[in-house]
Amino acid sequence: MTRKLNLVPFVSVEHMMKLVLAIGVERVLTDLAARIEEDFRGWSRFDKTPRLASHSVDGVIELMPTSDGRLYGFKYVNGHPKNRRDGRQTVAAFGVLADVGNGYPLLLSEMTLLTALRTAATSALAARYLARPGSRCMALVGNGAQSEFQALAFKALLGVTKLRLYDIDAAATRKCAGNLAGLGFDVACCASTGEAVDGADIVTTITADKHCATILTDAMIGPGVHLNAVGGDCPGKTELQRDILLRADIFVEFAPQTRVEGEIQQLDAAHPVVELWQVMTQQAPGRREARQITLFDSVGFAIEDFSALRYVREKLADNGLYHEIDLLADPDDPRDLLGMLRRAGTPPAAFHPLAPRFPQPSP
Amino acid sequence: MTRKLNLVPFVSVEHMMKLVLAIGVERVLTDLAARIEEDFRGWSRFDKTPRLASHSVDGVIELMPTSDGRLYGFKYVNGHPKNRRDGRQTVAAFGVLADVGNGYPLLLSEMTLLTALRTAATSALAARYLARPGSRCMALVGNGAQSEFQALAFKALLGVTKLRLYDIDAAATRKCAGNLAGLGFDVACCASTGEAVDGADIVTTITADKHCATILTDAMIGPGVHLNAVGGDCPGKTELQRDILLRADIFVEFAPQTRVEGEIQQLDAAHPVVELWQVMTQQAPGRREARQITLFDSVGFAIEDFSALRYVREKLADNGLYHEIDLLADPDDPRDLLGMLRRAGTPPAAFHPLAPRFPQPSP
Repeated sequence: MTRKLNLVPFVSVEHMMKLVLAIGVERVLTDLAARIEEDFRGWSRFDKTPRLASHSVDGVIELMPTSDGRLYGFKYVNGHPKNRRDGRQTVAAFGVLADVGNGYPLLLSEMTLLTALRTAATSALAARYLARPGSRCMALVGNGAQSEFQALAFKALLGVTKLRLYDIDAAATRKCAGNLAGLGFDVACCASTGEAVDGADIVTTITADKHCATILTDAMIGPGVHLNAVGGDCPGKTELQRDILLRADIFVEFAPQTRVEGEIQQLDAAHPVVELWQVMTQQAPGRREARQITLFDSVGFAIEDFSALRYVREKLADNGLYHEIDLLADPDDPRDLLGMLRRAGTPPAAFHPLAPRFPQPSP
Repeated sequence: MTRKLNLVPFVSVEHMMKLVLAIGVERVLTDLAARIEEDFRGWSRFDKTPRLASHSVDGVIELMPTSDGRLYGFKYVNGHPKNRRDGRQTVAAFGVLADVGNGYPLLLSEMTLLTALRTAATSALAARYLARPGSRCMALVGNGAQSEFQALAFKALLGVTKLRLYDIDAAATRKCAGNLAGLGFDVACCASTGEAVDGADIVTTITADKHCATILTDAMIGPGVHLNAVGGDCPGKTELQRDILLRADIFVEFAPQTRVEGEIQQLDAAHPVVELWQVMTQQAPGRREARQITLFDSVGFAIEDFSALRYVREKLADNGLYHEIDLLADPDDPRDLLGMLRRAGTPPAAFHPLAPRFPQPSP
């Protein structure tokens, strides 16, 4: 490959949309779930660390790195519930995949859309191990940007076709129902969380407020339900009443991170939880019986982003949906960074206003 | 401002070179030192954390975040000593500055060049507090990519004009001397470290090997010298004989990080060190007397990158030396991410190959 060392492929939002549309959303969700499952099964290969979060009054900015020893990936992601007021995304993200052998970035990509896709793919992947076989009906509580992706992932991976929507803002529910119309769902718009949850095999909560809310109360959850709790993902931000947690078998991505950020921040630090990779590698059971309540306490983990970036990079070769950006200095001699700078100056006098001349290096 | 929310200013390597050439290298170094000093003086405002390092056989990839509560910055940087063999930089970097209030990136910038500049600016800034007044002669041991920037920073900030160069590779020394010719230095190319150090007021070590080396031995360092140790910046990577450390007063950027990465990894964890900000705010003395040996055990800290990104952002407004890249999804309604994706598809059928039609949302 004669690629210039200074250039790094960049996948813009526009290119990501084109990529997803070209492949098909449900196919992308299925592919992402397969990559995530592959990486979760290889759990021991990965450097794992809770994400590095910088909290402020209005939100959080996080860096989520991981590596399998061959590739290194990280995501930058924010979470600012107030953002919608001025037209911004609550969650925006971008990320980088790099070569561990030389530390050079291989890919810079938008990840706002990709995060929505990988979050939904992870939820549906977990549900394949945890929901009752034959689950077809899902309640979606919280109908924001993530909701339709959840619906599409559960359709693609589990065959969920009945949706029961609820949001405290009816406009969000209308938006969600509108976006899902014609895609093969039977959609019911509900007037309350209780109505949405009634009769659902799977209950997905994806609300955005940054505080401990009680979106689901204990009485709402009957036996056999799988809970996919996505919106409680920050210290001080939960969605489920604590009593539900005590009745459920709890599954998480990476316990040291979920203990701080997930629903289980409401529980004792010793409360038993199972990491998903343990289920995937048959080191722990998933769902054992029909009446069991299972909970996927999803907060989002770096390996999911790694898998998603890896997938996007695989697809780049086929489709050309990227720009190359001049991100890395590449002097002719790696040790001659100043020489590169100097040679970029025309006329040379511009290099330094005080230098009367700027001669070539002596031989 | 009517800036589109999806666009983020991107400063490429080419634009960074143009910016630095337009302002002048020594002026940039002086400006950067001023910004770094300003931020170090405001130390308590900052979120401080040791950088997050991912080590591998051949090198390290690090994320270096910090925030002053208003702006958030992070740098991605690698360190791979072997990279030069295939024409790559030992150290390559890029970084992002973001708005803490909404989490949106304000700037994406190359930082390979910027890191070279900020590292040199930090060294010279420290030396203003730690070197003997009137220091004019500096030994530069290690003549790689960082060496000329160190020379220029010490000239700009301290008036150092006599340089004594040494590198185990004589070609590196020739390159360094060549690049510095005509810039107002009196340069001596030396045959050994001992020769280079002889008579120097300041000794700067900037070698790249990733192991514990002994670049300087105790006998080489006479009274009154200021040591600027830049190359020992990784666990297991040091440059100074331990005995030197025991004779010197040691100054660091952020002790919790330097204890792990710097020369002082050779010392007891309780060995006294002073953080530079304490000197700058007169909470601790810098150099007290002429015969004292001072050591700046420099490993590079996130606030320096923050200051540098802040400086670049200030300059953007004046000069237009940036591109705008489509990094962030910006749907008309922030909650309508899927709608944005859907509307990007022409013809709509491309959205999902299995969907026979893709109607507009119902009203």
